[in-house]
Amino acid sequence: MDERDALNISREVAKSVLKAVNSIPIGKRGEFYGIGKSGVTKLVDKVAENAALDILKRERLRILSEECGYVGEGDVFVALDPLDGTFNAVRGIPIYSLSLCFSDSENLADAFFGYVFNLCSGDEYYASERAFKNETVITVGGKENLEELNAIVYYPNRPLPFKRIRALGSAALETCFVAEGLFDCFIDIRGMLRIFDVAGGIYILEKAGGIVVDEKGNSLGSKRFELSERLNVVTTNKKLYRKLLELIL
Amino acid sequence: MDERDALNISREVAKSVLKAVNSIPIGKRGEFYGIGKSGVTKLVDKVAENAALDILKRERLRILSEECGYVGEGDVFVALDPLDGTFNAVRGIPIYSLSLCFSDSENLADAFFGYVFNLCSGDEYYASERAFKNETVITVGGKENLEELNAIVYYPNRPLPFKRIRALGSAALETCFVAEGLFDCFIDIRGMLRIFDVAGGIYILEKAGGIVVDEKGNSLGSKRFELSERLNVVTTNKKLYRKLLELIL
Repeated sequence: MDERDALNISREVAKSVLKAVNSIPIGKRGEFYGIGKSGVTKLVDKVAENAALDILKRERLRILSEECGYVGEGDVFVALDPLDGTFNAVRGIPIYSLSLCFSDSENLADAFFGYVFNLCSGDEYYASERAFKNETVITVGGKENLEELNAIVYYPNRPLPFKRIRALGSAALETCFVAEGLFDCFIDIRGMLRIFDVAGGIYILEKAGGIVVDEKGNSLGSKRFELSERLNVVTTNKKLYRKLLELIL
Repeated sequence: MDERDALNISREVAKSVLKAVNSIPIGKRGEFYGIGKSGVTKLVDKVAENAALDILKRERLRILSEECGYVGEGDVFVALDPLDGTFNAVRGIPIYSLSLCFSDSENLADAFFGYVFNLCSGDEYYASERAFKNETVITVGGKENLEELNAIVYYPNRPLPFKRIRALGSAALETCFVAEGLFDCFIDIRGMLRIFDVAGGIYILEKAGGIVVDEKGNSLGSKRFELSERLNVVTTNKKLYRKLLELIL
């Protein structure tokens, strides 16, 4: 399997998940479905996961997904978040996405393809060697001053000098917003991000020229495709990341 | 002029602003237009304001607007934010709104009608005696525990015990999200909110059963329709606001 196969599969998944999510009225999306591998599963989470797995299970893939853990057999590993931003999707707030990351092993270091699909706008982000949004190459912004930053932060616990701070509710999508330069950084060092939430987005962000590290400045390459894995993520452009790390230490 | 007139006028303004904003491609919205009464005016701000004023100036109204200050003559005062969430509108992030508040004097205390229009979804919020979303009565949520809250906070400067914290970028719309129970509180005590940003939303929120105070627990009734006015806003349901005030003091 190469990145072209991964893109084709991802697009089929996106089509399937989009149709599935939109088939459920907003008022029904939040209904309790059951207890999954990561806690409470809402109806819309399960419907989205089923729609994604319908496509992915046809392939020789080991798929790690939020609600059901590992399924499938194969040499290529996939971290799947069928619906990142369930809170928004349930309330009709139009910020939620699908995220996929393909890797040659259980390690994020061996990832070779990232894919994030904006389920509200239809925008598609992906990266193998370079990062794209809807077929156009994207790159991170180039700001150098903290006071000018449009930042995404979960959650500030002290005053921060940024121009603007947002938390929109879909880490997969927000990391892509940084990748395309709409925002200047993404910081979540609560120790709560799961691998499937951000593997796709941070792969895209790195290929868009960004730096992705933990709060100590370490690479996330050692992170594994496991339900129990937790990540701290600091991402921005190469001029800024040291300043950001100093700020949050 | 009564609240029925205000609703009719507001709806005409919404139609006009929606058409005007959507006529500008996202890539053009952020172009520099000039320096207005509140600082830099972007093209989309000016286009939205012109579209709103085209309607409002036909009426006998004193209109306070972000870009041009006071215009028009009349006994009824209107605080207008033609586009709340410019940052989002310019980037294609689908969270921005139009906000209007009608008052019998320059004081927020004499307001008699609030109107917020979601320019992305078309959802309409308004209140005179009661609060409505798309003709259905809305009321604030009823949570009592801080740990369960879905909170909107600009910006946390210490650890907060809430379940979830968001900052979506349109105060007018976010106060309405609290009014309809999608979120449990809205806190912005940076001293930066302007009267036209939130007058419409907080009027709706109060009529939906919420409490709106400043960070000391004081009513905002003494706030005036003036460009120089700044507000601190803490809003939530009646069971929670004392706990919130204790938390942020």
